[in-house]
Amino acid sequence: MTIDRTQLANAIRALAMDAVEAANSGHPGMPMGMADAATVLFAEQMKFDPADPHWPDRDRFVLSAGHGSMLIYALLHLTGYARPTIEDIANFRKLGSPCAGHPENFELAGVECTTGPLGQGLAMAVGMAIAERHLNAGFGDELVDHRTWVIAGDGCLMEGVNHEAAGLAGHLKLGRLNVLWDDNRITIDGAVSLSSSEDIAARYAAYGWHVVACDGHDMADVSRALKEAAADARPSLIACRTIIGKGAPNVAGTSKVHGAALGAAEVAAARESLVWTDEPFVIPQPIRDGWAEIGRRGAAPHAAWAERLKAHPQAAEFSRRMAGDLPAEDWLAPYLDTLYANPPKVASRKASEMALEAMTAAMPEMLGGSADLTSSNLTKAKAQTPFTADDAAGRYLYYGIREFGMSAAMNGMALHGGVIPYGGTFLVFADYARGAIRLSALQKARVVYVMTHDSIGLGEDGPTHQPIEHLASLRAMPNLHVYRPADAVETAECWALALERKDGPSLLALSRQNLRPVRTQAAGENLSGRGAYRLRSAVAERRVILIATGSEVEIALDTAELLEAQGIGADVVSMPSWERFAAQPADYRDDILPPLKPEQLLRVSIEAGSTFGWERHTMVEGLRFGIDGWGASAPAPDLYKHFGLTADQIAPKVLAALRV
Amino acid sequence: MTIDRTQLANAIRALAMDAVEAANSGHPGMPMGMADAATVLFAEQMKFDPADPHWPDRDRFVLSAGHGSMLIYALLHLTGYARPTIEDIANFRKLGSPCAGHPENFELAGVECTTGPLGQGLAMAVGMAIAERHLNAGFGDELVDHRTWVIAGDGCLMEGVNHEAAGLAGHLKLGRLNVLWDDNRITIDGAVSLSSSEDIAARYAAYGWHVVACDGHDMADVSRALKEAAADARPSLIACRTIIGKGAPNVAGTSKVHGAALGAAEVAAARESLVWTDEPFVIPQPIRDGWAEIGRRGAAPHAAWAERLKAHPQAAEFSRRMAGDLPAEDWLAPYLDTLYANPPKVASRKASEMALEAMTAAMPEMLGGSADLTSSNLTKAKAQTPFTADDAAGRYLYYGIREFGMSAAMNGMALHGGVIPYGGTFLVFADYARGAIRLSALQKARVVYVMTHDSIGLGEDGPTHQPIEHLASLRAMPNLHVYRPADAVETAECWALALERKDGPSLLALSRQNLRPVRTQAAGENLSGRGAYRLRSAVAERRVILIATGSEVEIALDTAELLEAQGIGADVVSMPSWERFAAQPADYRDDILPPLKPEQLLRVSIEAGSTFGWERHTMVEGLRFGIDGWGASAPAPDLYKHFGLTADQIAPKVLAALRV
Repeated sequence: MTIDRTQLANAIRALAMDAVEAANSGHPGMPMGMADAATVLFAEQMKFDPADPHWPDRDRFVLSAGHGSMLIYALLHLTGYARPTIEDIANFRKLGSPCAGHPENFELAGVECTTGPLGQGLAMAVGMAIAERHLNAGFGDELVDHRTWVIAGDGCLMEGVNHEAAGLAGHLKLGRLNVLWDDNRITIDGAVSLSSSEDIAARYAAYGWHVVACDGHDMADVSRALKEAAADARPSLIACRTIIGKGAPNVAGTSKVHGAALGAAEVAAARESLVWTDEPFVIPQPIRDGWAEIGRRGAAPHAAWAERLKAHPQAAEFSRRMAGDLPAEDWLAPYLDTLYANPPKVASRKASEMALEAMTAAMPEMLGGSADLTSSNLTKAKAQTPFTADDAAGRYLYYGIREFGMSAAMNGMALHGGVIPYGGTFLVFADYARGAIRLSALQKARVVYVMTHDSIGLGEDGPTHQPIEHLASLRAMPNLHVYRPADAVETAECWALALERKDGPSLLALSRQNLRPVRTQAAGENLSGRGAYRLRSAVAERRVILIATGSEVEIALDTAELLEAQGIGADVVSMPSWERFAAQPADYRDDILPPLKPEQLLRVSIEAGSTFGWERHTMVEGLRFGIDGWGASAPAPDLYKHFGLTADQIAPKVLAALRV
Repeated sequence: MTIDRTQLANAIRALAMDAVEAANSGHPGMPMGMADAATVLFAEQMKFDPADPHWPDRDRFVLSAGHGSMLIYALLHLTGYARPTIEDIANFRKLGSPCAGHPENFELAGVECTTGPLGQGLAMAVGMAIAERHLNAGFGDELVDHRTWVIAGDGCLMEGVNHEAAGLAGHLKLGRLNVLWDDNRITIDGAVSLSSSEDIAARYAAYGWHVVACDGHDMADVSRALKEAAADARPSLIACRTIIGKGAPNVAGTSKVHGAALGAAEVAAARESLVWTDEPFVIPQPIRDGWAEIGRRGAAPHAAWAERLKAHPQAAEFSRRMAGDLPAEDWLAPYLDTLYANPPKVASRKASEMALEAMTAAMPEMLGGSADLTSSNLTKAKAQTPFTADDAAGRYLYYGIREFGMSAAMNGMALHGGVIPYGGTFLVFADYARGAIRLSALQKARVVYVMTHDSIGLGEDGPTHQPIEHLASLRAMPNLHVYRPADAVETAECWALALERKDGPSLLALSRQNLRPVRTQAAGENLSGRGAYRLRSAVAERRVILIATGSEVEIALDTAELLEAQGIGADVVSMPSWERFAAQPADYRDDILPPLKPEQLLRVSIEAGSTFGWERHTMVEGLRFGIDGWGASAPAPDLYKHFGLTADQIAPKVLAALRV
C-alpha cells in the first residue's frame, strides 16, 4: 500500500511545528509551506542514498532559504539518514544538537552547504552545478551525472547575489540546476508587495532561464513542473505558489508564521486541521514506512554507479579528486629552484601567475577564474581554456563583474568536491564578497581567494581602490588564512599552503607593483608555513625587530641597513600569515619575537594598511608604521613617501624611540 | 553661431585621452565612448549652475562607472565650475590634484558622490531620487523639483547591488531617476558575451522600469531618448549603444581602450580622426564658448528658484535641513530623565526604538527603514508611515531584503541632503553591506546604521547569524564610528552622537537580549561621547580594570563584585566607542586607563566577539575574554556559559592572573 503523499508532507509539517514549539524559537512557516513540493521532489526526482551521504554522484539539495531548516532536518530524518535522529530534532536549536538554527554542513552529512545568509545557497548551487558539468566533462556520464536542486524564498531572490549567480548560470546554460521558488508572497515585514513589485519570472527569463510555474500544494502539478524543469536544457526556475505556514489554520498566509513558534493553541488547531493525532515527535509507522521507501530509491542506482566506478579506467583519479587529496607530484621544489637560479623582481600578482603555470599543470583539479580582472589579477595560466556553455572541460571561468557571486559559487564548487576553485578580484572588493568569504571559513571550504592590488602600492586608482582596513578585517575572521607574501618565493610557498589546506579557505593578498626578491636561497622548508620567520638577523647588538609583510618587507630590510649603519642591530621578520604564526609552538614564537621588555628590544611593524591589531605583535609600546586613514590617488612611489612608508622616514623614528 | 555639438563632445575626448596620457594611467575608453551622450545630457536636460555647485534644486549627476572619471572632470571644467581647472586636469591622478583616479565628492564640489566601486553609483542615485521625492512632498515643487541622472556601464549592471537598487526604484516608481547605460559590449576581460548573456532591457522592464534605446553617437537619437525618459513616470533605463574609445581609430571597440593610456601614436591618430589640431589641454575658444553657454543654462532657473525660496513660508526650515543642522530642540535630556525616573531592563534594540520615538518626533529629517527586519531591528517609530510610490511624505522605507542596496541608497540620501537616513539589519549582515559602509565613511556621509542582534546573545539562530569578527572589522574602518551601548541610557547617548555627527557615518551595534540598566543617574554630560568612561570605581585597592562594551558591561560589573569580595579592587570601564575614546585628550585617557605596568594594574576586556585588536586597550599582558571561533545555536544564556562569558568563570581567571 502506498501512503497518501499529503500525509508524508504532513509529517514534515508536524516535525517543523513541534520542533519550533519545543525550542520556542525558529521558523515554521517555510517548512509547512514547502512540505508538499519537497515531498514530490524527494519522492520523484532527487537521486540520493541516505546510507551514504557522500556518494559522489548524488543530486545536491540546497535549502537556500536556510531559516526553514526544519524542512531539511525532517527530510533527512524521514528518508533514513543516520542523523538527525528524532532526539536531535527534539533538541532543535539547543546546545549539542546538530539541528542548529540554520543548516550547517559541518553538523550533518546530509546538509550540502551552510545556509541562512540569504541568496548564497542559490549562488553556491550554481557552483555545484559548474563542478558537476566540469567533472562530467572529465569523467563522463558513467561517474558524474547528477543535478542540483534548490529551494529559495523571496529573500534569496531579492538579495543582489541571486542576480549575479543567476546571470552566470544562465550564461553557462547550467541545465542541471533547478530552483524551486517558494512563492508565498510574504516576507518578515509583511507582504512582498510592501517592498517589491518585480516580475521575477520575467527577470529569470531575461537571464536565459527556463521558467515554469505550479501550484505548490497540488502534488500532481508540482510533479509536472519538476519534470519539465528536469527536461529543459536551461537552468530552471520553478515558481511554486504556496501558502506560508500551510496547515496552521489561523496564521497561514501571514508573516506571523514566518519566524516564531505557533503557540500551543495554534499547534493544536493545526493538528486538528491536518488530522494529525500523534504526540509531538511521533511519526506513525505507515508514514515512516512511506518515507523509508523514498529513502531506498537511491540504493540501486548507487550500487550500479559503484560497479561502474570499479570498472572505470579513471577510478583512482576520480576517487583522489573527490577525496580532496593532492597529487603526489611535488610542483613546488622544482619551481622554487627556478626562482633561486634567477630571482625575479616581479609583482607578487605576477609571481602568482608564474606559480599558477606550475600548479595548474600539476593539479588538474584547479579551476580558476576572475571577476573580470583576469589581466590585472593574472589568474589565468596559459594552458587554461574557458569553461563555457559549450565546453565544460575548460578550467578557467570568466565570472564577469560578480565578486560575491563568484565567491559563493566557489564555495559551492569546493563543497561539491573534485575541484579546487580559486578566483581573483582586487583586495578592496573583498568587501563585496565578504558574505561568501565568511561562509567559506565557516563551512571549512577549500577556496583560494587571489586578491591583488593589495595596498596604496596600486597607485593612481586612489582611495576607492586602495585597501586600508582589509587585512585587519580579514585577519579578524575565524578560520580564514590570510597570506601576504613578500616576493616570488613566498608567493609560491603561500600558494602551496593554501592548496594543502583541506579545512578552510585561504586568501592571498598580492601586490600590483614589482617587489625585490628577498628570498634568494633554498631554505629547506616552507618558511611561510611558519607564518613568520627571521629573514635577516641583527649584525650589531640586537635592539630592534622590524616586522613586515608583503611589499613592505623590502622596506624593513632597507630600514635595518640604516639602523645598522648607526650601530643598532635589527632583525627583520617577514610575517606572511598571522594565523600560521599563531599556530606555532611557543618556543618558536618566542624565538622570533622574544618576550622581552620594549626597552630591551623594540618591536616595529611596517605594513601599508591599518595598524589595527598590530599591537598583538609589537606590544603597545612598540612602533607601528601603517595607514589609518584613506589612501590617495598618485603614483605608488609618491604615495609611499606621502604616507611615511620609506626606510628614510622610518629609521629616524625608530632611532628616536630607542633614545627615549 | 552655435558650435557643432560633435566638436563639444570631442573636447571631452581630447581632455580624456590627454589626461590619461599625461598620467600614463587611467581609463580613456568610457569618456570617449560616452562623450556624445553626455554632451546632449548636459546641453539639453541637466539643470545645474556651475556658479553654485550646492544649489539644492540642481539635478544630480552620478557617474556610476567611476573609472571614466575624466568624463566628469571634463564636463565640470568645460561648463565652468571653479574646479577642476585645466591644471587640475593636467595633473590627473597625481598627488594634490582633485582629479583623482576615481571621482570623489570630497575633492570636487561638482562630484555628487564617490564612485568607482561598481554598481554603487546607481544605487546611491536611487537614494538621491528618494530624497528628492521626499523633500518635494514636504516643500513642494517650488523648492524641490529635480532629477537624478546616472551613467552606468556593464559592470554596474552586473554587480548584485544594481538588482537591489533597481528593484527598489521600480517598486517606488522613482520617475525622476534616469540611467544612461553605456552599452558598449566590452568589459575588462573582453566582450561582455564572455561572461553574460542576459537581456538587460527585459530585466529592467521586469523591475517596472521604462526602457528606451538609442544610438549613443547619434545626438538627435540620444536627445529623443532622453526626452522620452524624462517624460515617463517610471524610472528609465536609456540604453545608449556606443563604441568604447570612439575616436581612437585602432583600438576603439576593444577592451584595450578600457583602462590604459592610448600611447603617443594612437593619440596622434585619434587627433587626426577627430580633426583636433590643438596641443594637449588646449581647448579652442569657440568650443570653450559653446560649453560656457551650456554652463550658463542654469543661471536663470537658479535665480528664479532663489526668489521662490525667499518668498517661501518654509524657507528657514528648508535651509536648515539642507545645511544639515539639527533643530535647536533638545530631545535627549528630557528623554533621559524618563529613563532615570524608571530605568528599563530592555534590549538595546528596544532602547533604540524608545529613543526613536523621541528623536523622530523632534527631527523631521530622520528617514528610517530596515532591510525586512522591522520587527527585529525595531527601527520604526509609531508615527512613521511608509514611504511609497503614492506617498513620498512617508518617513519609513520598507527596503526589502536588500542590505547593500539599502546602505548605498542611504549614502545617496545623505549626500543629497535634507534628510538623515538610518536603516537596520542584523550586525552579521554588515558583511553584505560592507561596500556601502566603506563608501559612507570615505564620503563623510551622515548615515546611521542600526545593527541589532549584535553577538551570540541573539541565541538560537546560530553561527550564520552571530557576529564574531564584525566589531573588530568595523572598528578597523577609517572614519566609521562604531557604538555598542550597554543600556537604554547609553543607547540614547550614542544615537545623539550619531545624529550630531556631520562628517561621517555611525553604526550602532545593539543587543537582541534584555540588558540590565547600568546608568541610572543623570551624569551631566553625554558620557558615551567620551568613548569610554569609568562606570564603577574600585572600592578595595585597585588592581584591575575591567573594560567592556554593550551587553557585557553588566557581566563586568558582576565580575567586579566577585573580585571585590576577594579584596581585589576593580574599576569597570564602559567603552561604547573606540573611536571616540581615541579622540580624547591624553590626560583623560590616562585617567581611565592609567599607563601602569600590568603587574600594578591588570587590564581585562570582556566582549562577546573576537578579541582581535583588544590588545590596544588591555596591553598584550592583559586578559581578553571573547570568542575567537564561531558561535553556536542555543539559547543565549547557555551560550554565554558555553563560551566562558559569565562573571563566575571570568573572576577566577582574573584572580589567577593576579597571583602569577
